[in-house]
Amino acid sequence: MNSAPPEAGVILAQSGAQALVGYVVDVGQPDRLGRAWLDITDRHTNRNGMLHGGLIAMLLDAACGFTASMRLGGAALTPLVTVSLTTQFVAAAKVGQRVTAIGYPSGGGRKIAYVHGELKDEAGQMIATASGVFKAVPAERFK
Amino acid sequence: MNSAPPEAGVILAQSGAQALVGYVVDVGQPDRLGRAWLDITDRHTNRNGMLHGGLIAMLLDAACGFTASMRLGGAALTPLVTVSLTTQFVAAAKVGQRVTAIGYPSGGGRKIAYVHGELKDEAGQMIATASGVFKAVPAERFK
Amino acid sequence: MNSAPPEAGVILAQSGAQALVGYVVDVGQPDRLGRAWLDITDRHTNRNGMLHGGLIAMLLDAACGFTASMRLGGAALTPLVTVSLTTQFVAAAKVGQRVTAIGYPSGGGRKIAYVHGELKDEAGQMIATASGVFKAVPAERFK
Amino acid sequence: MNSAPPEAGVILAQSGAQALVGYVVDVGQPDRLGRAWLDITDRHTNRNGMLHGGLIAMLLDAACGFTASMRLGGAALTPLVTVSLTTQFVAAAKVGQRVTAIGYPSGGGRKIAYVHGELKDEAGQMIATASGVFKAVPAERFK
Repeated sequence: MNSAPPEAGVILAQSGAQALVGYVVDVGQPDRLGRAWLDITDRHTNRNGMLHGGLIAMLLDAACGFTASMRLGGAALTPLVTVSLTTQFVAAAKVGQRVTAIGYPSGGGRKIAYVHGELKDEAGQMIATASGVFKAVPAERFK
Repeated sequence: MNSAPPEAGVILAQSGAQALVGYVVDVGQPDRLGRAWLDITDRHTNRNGMLHGGLIAMLLDAACGFTASMRLGGAALTPLVTVSLTTQFVAAAKVGQRVTAIGYPSGGGRKIAYVHGELKDEAGQMIATASGVFKAVPAERFK
Repeated sequence: MNSAPPEAGVILAQSGAQALVGYVVDVGQPDRLGRAWLDITDRHTNRNGMLHGGLIAMLLDAACGFTASMRLGGAALTPLVTVSLTTQFVAAAKVGQRVTAIGYPSGGGRKIAYVHGELKDEAGQMIATASGVFKAVPAERFK
Repeated sequence: MNSAPPEAGVILAQSGAQALVGYVVDVGQPDRLGRAWLDITDRHTNRNGMLHGGLIAMLLDAACGFTASMRLGGAALTPLVTVSLTTQFVAAAKVGQRVTAIGYPSGGGRKIAYVHGELKDEAGQMIATASGVFKAVPAERFK
């Protein structure tokens, strides 16, 4: 357990699901691309013993969503919802690997952002790709 | 904690991710459609306090994948991989609700299955839909 | 060439692409679901001699889009744009067949509609399915 | 009308749909990426007067499919089918513009290829993106 504060831009356990799964979000890089990474353990496997597809989608949704938040919100991280997310499962990822998702903006307007995501392992092997649509929403909507 | 055995066709904690998240799979219904349900708690929320999109994708992937396993495998549940999954996030789901995903087969051949999924809450409100492609793989592939 | 007016709700050659391809839109059914059908000819084939995937996507986009227009617009057919469309190609369709796409609403709000589409041949064989997101836009936007 | 033979790698009117729509395929570039471009005319418009979404999907399907054919087939262009295609409609394209789709391989194996596509206008503006899954099939299948 590390009691040091996280680096600037690193988000840990911001939501219930993030705390449960244990992925780390990084919105502090100069390229302003959202990232989400996970060290795969036995708690993350599907019935084949590989990283579960739902968690692959979760990492890509997080990375793409934070890219959209930065794009739509300027300095602040705009609250948003995922409208649609397509995930292509290119290769399997194993326990012990660290996988990192990055979201790349494709375009959009003031309220809608289109983001393309890639999930790779540490060797640079593509594990999955994603295409997502995200919509800015007023923060009050969820109160 | 319930020490009674689960009903026929109910699958609990078959994988690391299923145990972590706590969703329940049901492959024992006479319609031979895969189902996955979850009682939403604080551990399942996104940064808006609603059910996390990654978990929505996980439930739909599970339900659709088990429908594909039953379709491709006959009596046995064929091992398979998800090739592609598109999730449309129609409405938000809250802590305290039970949501259930069901996978409906659209077609396919001996090795590929196409499945359409729906995730609804107990009132029948559509939370999300999905379209998935699944591919049967030899069980040895993951040994 | 038939000089009789089309039936109520039937739309022919409303756009350049519709006239070029020759598909027929039907928005006059009591179920208020958009339909688009095509009699497949040699002008519609891909390099394998089957109905081209792009035209499959076009039929599903049309059917789902008109379902969304009816849902979002009431009596009028609201102008809208397709935000995202996923097409799953389940089976091939041949020259000489008539294929019909129908769009089924999954949900949405005042500005966004989620629609699930199915394309079948006359025997009821599923050719393709689709999931689309559509957004209402002011008509002036395209002037 | 130009009676000169097309450049090496340029494919014109190979299929009925390609001849109908008039897009051009280019598989002769050294980067071995499939391309498909179209000069937008009044025959290509949707009911808003912009390039029809179905034709956007067609261009992306063509570009991504030829990238997959080159990847799966080596020197020859392997016959294949599109398994799934997701298109994100980022911006509208107008009559008079030339738009070009390029397919970038994301991965895959001997029979399945995953391809990410981008459709841009001449100014480099992103019009649409796509994610596709393609499967090699024996050429006899379509005889």
